[in-house]
Amino acid sequence: MLDIMSVTLINPFEVPPGREEDAVAYWERCADVLRRQPGFISAHLHRAIMPGARFALVNVAEWESAEHFQSAVSTSEFQAAATTGASDFPHFPAMYDLVRTIP
Amino acid sequence: MLDIMSVTLINPFEVPPGREEDAVAYWERCADVLRRQPGFISAHLHRAIMPGARFALVNVAEWESAEHFQSAVSTSEFQAAATTGASDFPHFPAMYDLVRTIP
Repeated sequence: MLDIMSVTLINPFEVPPGREEDAVAYWERCADVLRRQPGFISAHLHRAIMPGARFALVNVAEWESAEHFQSAVSTSEFQAAATTGASDFPHFPAMYDLVRTIP
Repeated sequence: MLDIMSVTLINPFEVPPGREEDAVAYWERCADVLRRQPGFISAHLHRAIMPGARFALVNVAEWESAEHFQSAVSTSEFQAAATTGASDFPHFPAMYDLVRTIP
């Protein structure tokens, strides 16, 4: 997961009460497009254990570069998949480098 | 990182402009305590590549269980380390299970 030749997308999702399954389905629709784009390496969707977490879902994905990710989300195919649900589940995607690691 | 016998802590940090180094130092003070607590496995601090990200820093850590993490952050040593800076850098820690993975 933590290859020096990759960057990490972290995307926390706000999920209204009772909408968790819909949010997972939304993520799956988007991921089904992104996984076929150049530069995609992996994705891991995390679900909060306890109810009431600020972000019920968090996606952590690896891409070969930030440019690959930007190209992928700019495709019309992704835009079509992502439109429905985007406002239902506010999310905050950003690309990250690893700056500290323990051990 | 993704052992079936662990849970994932994900903790996004809001960092005011110009305060990134202080926020990393705050994380290091807290992490120096937590790494010595029972159940700690690993921690990875991520920094946003582009300025203006909603969460400039995101910690992704592995713990043996949610109970281990709760015990660790309940210690007086952690409370002392975490007090200064907590309000400067609003953060939203929660424990997560992995629910989807690609490939």
